[in-house]
Amino acid sequence: MKITVLGGDGYCGWATALFLAKQGHSVSIVDNFARRQWDHELGVETLTPIRSLTERLRVWKALTGLTIEVFSGDVCEYDFLSSVLRQVGPDAVVHFAEQRAAPYSMIDRKHAVFTQVNNVVGTLNLLFAIREFVPDCHLVKLGTMGEYGTPNIDIEEGYLEIEHNGRRDILPFPKQPGSFYHLSKVHDSHNIMFACRIWGLRATDLNQGVVYGTLTDEVALDDALINRFDYDEVFGTVLNRFCVEAAARHPLTVYGKGGQTRGYIDIRDTVRCIELACLNPAEPGECRVYNQFTEQFSVLELAHLVQTAAARIGLEVSIEHLPDPRVEKEEHYYNAKHSKLVDLGLQPHLLSDSLLDSLLNIALRYKDRIDTAMFLPRINWRAARNDRHAPAMAAVVK
Amino acid sequence: MKITVLGGDGYCGWATALFLAKQGHSVSIVDNFARRQWDHELGVETLTPIRSLTERLRVWKALTGLTIEVFSGDVCEYDFLSSVLRQVGPDAVVHFAEQRAAPYSMIDRKHAVFTQVNNVVGTLNLLFAIREFVPDCHLVKLGTMGEYGTPNIDIEEGYLEIEHNGRRDILPFPKQPGSFYHLSKVHDSHNIMFACRIWGLRATDLNQGVVYGTLTDEVALDDALINRFDYDEVFGTVLNRFCVEAAARHPLTVYGKGGQTRGYIDIRDTVRCIELACLNPAEPGECRVYNQFTEQFSVLELAHLVQTAAARIGLEVSIEHLPDPRVEKEEHYYNAKHSKLVDLGLQPHLLSDSLLDSLLNIALRYKDRIDTAMFLPRINWRAARNDRHAPAMAAVVK
Repeated sequence: MKITVLGGDGYCGWATALFLAKQGHSVSIVDNFARRQWDHELGVETLTPIRSLTERLRVWKALTGLTIEVFSGDVCEYDFLSSVLRQVGPDAVVHFAEQRAAPYSMIDRKHAVFTQVNNVVGTLNLLFAIREFVPDCHLVKLGTMGEYGTPNIDIEEGYLEIEHNGRRDILPFPKQPGSFYHLSKVHDSHNIMFACRIWGLRATDLNQGVVYGTLTDEVALDDALINRFDYDEVFGTVLNRFCVEAAARHPLTVYGKGGQTRGYIDIRDTVRCIELACLNPAEPGECRVYNQFTEQFSVLELAHLVQTAAARIGLEVSIEHLPDPRVEKEEHYYNAKHSKLVDLGLQPHLLSDSLLDSLLNIALRYKDRIDTAMFLPRINWRAARNDRHAPAMAAVVK
Repeated sequence: MKITVLGGDGYCGWATALFLAKQGHSVSIVDNFARRQWDHELGVETLTPIRSLTERLRVWKALTGLTIEVFSGDVCEYDFLSSVLRQVGPDAVVHFAEQRAAPYSMIDRKHAVFTQVNNVVGTLNLLFAIREFVPDCHLVKLGTMGEYGTPNIDIEEGYLEIEHNGRRDILPFPKQPGSFYHLSKVHDSHNIMFACRIWGLRATDLNQGVVYGTLTDEVALDDALINRFDYDEVFGTVLNRFCVEAAARHPLTVYGKGGQTRGYIDIRDTVRCIELACLNPAEPGECRVYNQFTEQFSVLELAHLVQTAAARIGLEVSIEHLPDPRVEKEEHYYNAKHSKLVDLGLQPHLLSDSLLDSLLNIALRYKDRIDTAMFLPRINWRAARNDRHAPAMAAVVK
């Protein structure tokens, strides 16, 4: 298939682009390198020394003989985006090209507005470009499990059959997102559902859980292909951060009680889920929603897993409960369905000791690059303006 | 109370500002005159010759002795908006300052993006400005009944108690909006709900039905105070349009079968609902949702009512079914609850023969200003680009 990956220089996008290319698809990447820019803005760096996209793709080509075409530009610029789709004529567009960090969107008003405008306009542009120029193209859009929040009922995959006052309907699952970022994905989901209905577009909205891991088979081919490994309080996902904290013999930073339960997924499964969605496209007019995760964990469970795995290799670390910088339930019911991708053939990589060992070993390998100042939260959901130059919240509160 | 009306130069905003001032509240208006600019863009005009805001308020002051302060600017500019709130220190902000026409948002990509960015950013700015500078101020936000779409179950006021797999929760009512405009209001609703939750703001989200009528007691004081009366295919609401069509002896333009059923409200009730919301503020952290309409009608029922009322004064008009330019169900179940504002004291003005006579008489009074080319729909939901200089859809299809 011809597949265009928007945001193909990012964490999930890069792994996905290489995986799809390796499976024999004709892959192109669109990226404006905003993710690298945000690292500069925040003064943070991925633990792993990632190379420029040009170098990554040069090495990839040398190793595999496969060419991945790059279009450098912003999906918020319609002329650019639509010209790419006209030129490529993809069978599927995989859309990762959004600002994806909840804390980033909660820094202050400017970051909240930026996140929502950037994400909503990019997706609107994509919907219009598909409608105008490649109407049969399948949109594979990354949403987030965070769209649902933590309701006191089971979370279904996108839709819920509701009986009310003796009548029935299947309606979009009610959303209670927990940050301006998560809200932007809810806005996207509503816009996509509408575009499918009025224009007959095909879409799959993948509500992804928290992604962990860094090595996929393709990325492992060469150091030059190494993927991001974010551990900072803004872009770092929690399991990655715990592993880096353990490598630095820093207490594992659990927010609040740690009962916050979410869906998690290994990045090796992320790339497979994307291919499964592409190979089994939605029907014209259909807006499918899949919950893209494989296991549920509470934050405290993850901390214990990392603590145990670290002890096995001689790293003794404690677990520290910090005041939760987010406004969220610290203990709650959580049971989210995730069978549709398995029905399509996904064979999950569940979180294992060997994966934890591998993550810890990567963290140890790049130990010299760890900046422990990046562990502690500085972005407080309750404040309207957060100054990241101020002392970290935990330091203030303790 | 000190009440600031954002969008106080528009149709609902103007009537509301005068009504609130007459009730003894200290009223200020914020407006950037975007609504007047859109008339210029589209080449349309309100049937009634409205005056400039300056002249309106000069006459209002001369007649009543009441001063309404004006802040001229755009709520999308945060420095402007926040300086107004700091200066005024309102008890309540009534937020009408959004692009409110579904067809306008469906013209093309630029209008869709404009509508969503304008509405979402304006409301985000307002939430942050309240949080930063007037945290106890009550936000009274205009939403729309169109946020709900037409589900096959009863529509509740904002929230729905759901039982699923043996567990229960009260969740936001699922939304299925029918245009990029209606979507923008859904986005706003989610953002507001979140801001109340994390910051303890007070908000009332008023999901208003289709508004009709033009005369309120205050507006009727003098010709210089006359309100808008929009009848064009973009900004005209359906009952107003039918009355103007009748005055022009033009067939009443029903889209499709006309079974589309919606909630309707007299503008005299709109202004009362707003005051009731202000006088009974939400609690800190509460995001209340009221359905602000008084009666349900199908489009065809309204056409028959206008046809009958017109016949009484000697105007014989036919009803013409045009292909529906919108993507919507032309026949469907519809039962929306609307008791909460009545519980607060609203005494509805139901649609009566005398109100229809009054609307028809206004239409006849300004008959010379009617442009019949404005009746026929030119904006097709199914197209990604609509050229309003092209012949009207009905003319093409017939």
